[in-house]
Amino acid sequence: MKTERPIGVFDSGIGGLTVVHALTRRMPHENIVYFGDTARVPYGPKSTQVVREYAAQDTDVLLEHDVKMIIVACNTVSAVALDIVQKRAKVPVMGVILPGAGAAVKTTRKKRIGIIGTVGTIKSNAYTNAIRQVDPEVQVFGKACPLFVPLAEEGWIDHKATELIAKEYLFPLTLEKIDTLVLGCTHYPILKGVIARVLQNSVTLIDSGEATAEAAAVLLEEQHLKNTSTLKPNLRFSVSDVSHTFAEVGERFLGQRLGRVHRVSGLAH
Amino acid sequence: MKTERPIGVFDSGIGGLTVVHALTRRMPHENIVYFGDTARVPYGPKSTQVVREYAAQDTDVLLEHDVKMIIVACNTVSAVALDIVQKRAKVPVMGVILPGAGAAVKTTRKKRIGIIGTVGTIKSNAYTNAIRQVDPEVQVFGKACPLFVPLAEEGWIDHKATELIAKEYLFPLTLEKIDTLVLGCTHYPILKGVIARVLQNSVTLIDSGEATAEAAAVLLEEQHLKNTSTLKPNLRFSVSDVSHTFAEVGERFLGQRLGRVHRVSGLAH
Repeated sequence: MKTERPIGVFDSGIGGLTVVHALTRRMPHENIVYFGDTARVPYGPKSTQVVREYAAQDTDVLLEHDVKMIIVACNTVSAVALDIVQKRAKVPVMGVILPGAGAAVKTTRKKRIGIIGTVGTIKSNAYTNAIRQVDPEVQVFGKACPLFVPLAEEGWIDHKATELIAKEYLFPLTLEKIDTLVLGCTHYPILKGVIARVLQNSVTLIDSGEATAEAAAVLLEEQHLKNTSTLKPNLRFSVSDVSHTFAEVGERFLGQRLGRVHRVSGLAH
Repeated sequence: MKTERPIGVFDSGIGGLTVVHALTRRMPHENIVYFGDTARVPYGPKSTQVVREYAAQDTDVLLEHDVKMIIVACNTVSAVALDIVQKRAKVPVMGVILPGAGAAVKTTRKKRIGIIGTVGTIKSNAYTNAIRQVDPEVQVFGKACPLFVPLAEEGWIDHKATELIAKEYLFPLTLEKIDTLVLGCTHYPILKGVIARVLQNSVTLIDSGEATAEAAAVLLEEQHLKNTSTLKPNLRFSVSDVSHTFAEVGERFLGQRLGRVHRVSGLAH
């Protein structure tokens, strides 16, 4: 059946598993194929040209699985290479930035939104541009938080050091009196608790992954692509390199067991 | 002149610039060519097979510059792929592990040595094996410190969070009553101050980069390859990708201005 074809999700590494987690909660019957380009992670600090080459190759990996839609669960690719993916795929393509930006605009009362992400995502101004297109009156304040990714991977979720680091990163945003904060990196939902605590719950957090799952559900419904089967779905995970920490960190991000992980070896590196 | 040929140094990224820093202090008249594979950094979490492929390609980049010796300023490559580099190059090759291990054995009085490094370096047991070959009676205690690399890159050298993280990582090693600690990652010398403070200066720190510079100086002298010119040396830097933070972080690591950085584009990725 056409609607039983999987949703394809790719990311530079394992962070996108938080998006898969959000997808499985929002659409528990969809089959999903995930590809994490773990041999070449991270994309964040890399130049635009390199990220665009990688995005094209990642798309091809998913297209081999006859996916019915592609979700780019990587903020860097969503920011600078979504057009490449769209051009290559003959199926609907969705990044994480537009859904995250849209949800933030809907949420803010004071029209003051903060964005946190990698250096690359923040420098790209992709969230700022997306938000301003929806509502030019909104003021957007970005802050790169490079230590959040390794902290999430270490699993130091309740550590005093994580709280100090979060305070240092988020302090300038509190001065700007934001009322909404976009978690503009797929690793950050892991640190949602400490981020909310540091902001004293005065700011609404927007999880880009959850916003994307919501938008994807609407799109599949509209295009009559929603899987009508109620069987247990098939979740398949593939990576370009099986790193030392992949299974342990991946399961924390996914919120469940990963099962067998396939290694994609055809990629040039 | 044969002796004027440059020393070639490569690393997975910018960390190796601390080794270049050590080399320029120990041998201020040597010409140096550096290659950082910034498009594919980090090597630490990658599988051995992938690291070996990359190491071969990095070697080829340096061989194009007619280098008189190659220093592998990457602990991961030194641990699992030094043989590949040696096989490819017709010049002397030196990793950072044997010099670091040798210096640690010379230093320890209690025969209890700690090693800190990336997950990959620690799991490889490369330092432990190297130390045991020199002195089988020495006890070695390894600890992976994944957050040290991003902390060094952020430049959070005197931050309270860095101290808390260092305490957490190093506490198990103090329980083992080590008297010598090898900084088994080229990023770590940046954090030497906080590491020494946390250990209350009771442990001698071995900087693998400095130990390697010393060993390289001895080797060049012995093989009559030392540069006899006293002109200002030529330092050339090349990378496979110019990242957002390369110049800023690189100059902190190198301890001086980088000048023009060449991008090597021939590498498959």
